[in-house]
Amino acid sequence: MNVVGIDGDALGDSLKRVQREVDSVFDAELPLPSDTSARLVEAMRYAAIGGGKRVRPLLVVSTAELFGVDRDAALRAGAAVEAIHVYSLIHDDLPCMDDDDLRHGKPTVHKAYDEATAVLAGDALHALAFEILADNDTSADPFVRSELIATLGTASGMKGMAGGQMMDMVADEEGVEYDLRSITRLQQLKTGALLAASVEMGAVLGRVPPEGRAHLRAYARDIGLAFQIADDLLDVTGDADKAGKALRKDQSQGKQTFVTLMGVDKAREQADALVDQAIAHLGSHGREADTLRALARFIVERDR
Amino acid sequence: MNVVGIDGDALGDSLKRVQREVDSVFDAELPLPSDTSARLVEAMRYAAIGGGKRVRPLLVVSTAELFGVDRDAALRAGAAVEAIHVYSLIHDDLPCMDDDDLRHGKPTVHKAYDEATAVLAGDALHALAFEILADNDTSADPFVRSELIATLGTASGMKGMAGGQMMDMVADEEGVEYDLRSITRLQQLKTGALLAASVEMGAVLGRVPPEGRAHLRAYARDIGLAFQIADDLLDVTGDADKAGKALRKDQSQGKQTFVTLMGVDKAREQADALVDQAIAHLGSHGREADTLRALARFIVERDR
Repeated sequence: MNVVGIDGDALGDSLKRVQREVDSVFDAELPLPSDTSARLVEAMRYAAIGGGKRVRPLLVVSTAELFGVDRDAALRAGAAVEAIHVYSLIHDDLPCMDDDDLRHGKPTVHKAYDEATAVLAGDALHALAFEILADNDTSADPFVRSELIATLGTASGMKGMAGGQMMDMVADEEGVEYDLRSITRLQQLKTGALLAASVEMGAVLGRVPPEGRAHLRAYARDIGLAFQIADDLLDVTGDADKAGKALRKDQSQGKQTFVTLMGVDKAREQADALVDQAIAHLGSHGREADTLRALARFIVERDR
Repeated sequence: MNVVGIDGDALGDSLKRVQREVDSVFDAELPLPSDTSARLVEAMRYAAIGGGKRVRPLLVVSTAELFGVDRDAALRAGAAVEAIHVYSLIHDDLPCMDDDDLRHGKPTVHKAYDEATAVLAGDALHALAFEILADNDTSADPFVRSELIATLGTASGMKGMAGGQMMDMVADEEGVEYDLRSITRLQQLKTGALLAASVEMGAVLGRVPPEGRAHLRAYARDIGLAFQIADDLLDVTGDADKAGKALRKDQSQGKQTFVTLMGVDKAREQADALVDQAIAHLGSHGREADTLRALARFIVERDR
């Protein structure tokens, strides 16, 4: 695979490097205490370290790189986004939510520990995200810290991820059937908001003024949607072992997705078109944006 | 009741005023969306508006008042602390945690809605706390915003509230018996950290440098401990209707508390001594600290 200037191996190397680096941020932020709250930190480490593709941190780091941001600072911001992503997976996997036993190929937190520990570990990772961002090590400029926090808070709360999860739940429980427009809105909140926040936070670290971020926002919006279409495709056509989680869930739950609404072929076409469009938005950047371009391609090709 | 310059009625008025004001911050921050995520915001409003004594917001506002802070700013910071407190109650009440049906005299969120909605509503209130603090309306100074967030993040995460909850859970599940020293540590994390953060945030808003906050921290530490002893006493001697929640739970679970370790009389003495000590720490302040003094007294006398 050779995509727009960076080949698949180079992107793989970038992802592996960020995986190592994010693990090391979490390792430093999660020292085991000597009292009985150690169980909480163990569960947080279990969920946060050594799993996941780290697409969001790579988005933060690669966007920040465009503007010459210090890599350690960008990695801390990336780890904060990832802490939010990980907490949301822990809570999503709970019996009262999606009731999943497997995540990244190992037992989910409530299976490895128990439900109460899973609730608390999610909550504590949620707080950790904002602790990391409010720290001087992430940026010496308090305005940058505050903007990072506002961006991540909005993306993860009721106007972002949590709102999207609720729309999803209402569809499951109350049998509401969404049309393509509502599904798009749902997914823009549920997964798109955090992916978009990752790009936005890279730009915030780079002190790009809001009016200079329009093309990055457009890029993020397109890859966010492509990401979800790819996820829906994966649920239908993917391999559970490779994905490290249960698949064929949408179908068995009779759920409306991009694939049920558009069909496999049309959905795949749409995802590819979104990726081309996302890459086109980066036209004003040279080779330094190649990782973002390759990442856009990777997002729809990851598990085909 | 007439305590140190402000009588019980005056304190009652202060609490009622803050209750109204915090409700109105939440009302403004939680507009109902027009899509199906409305259910999430309804559950957040159900939990956050119209319940609770609002002791934490009054601590923020009364401390901020000592330093001439704009009341609206202090109320926003107070609402942020309260959002964290409310989210923690929603999650605590879940079947997998304390399994409580009643809170502030009405059904808990998972009873009024369902468990998944309760998990999400807690998560979204958690995010809201940091969104409120990161907003320009809370302080025009990004350094102040960032300090508020760092203070609240640390107090609510693994080194604070969540850590204390885990210590509590380990005791319940694994039958670990804590001594007085460990119970003190547990409670300083579980409830003390957020009460202390409330006072600290008032000082941050007032731009009091860290070295000028020692007496306020001492006050906060003492009332935090007195608060928990009073809570343990309430569990043994209180009236469930008046408390608006289930009581006699510690006893029935064979749990170590300040009361089981010290006995009712000794515990009550200790709580009173801590309140006297807390009030003594405010010696450098005049009448303007009377609400904080009355609040210290109220904390141990609230439901006797």
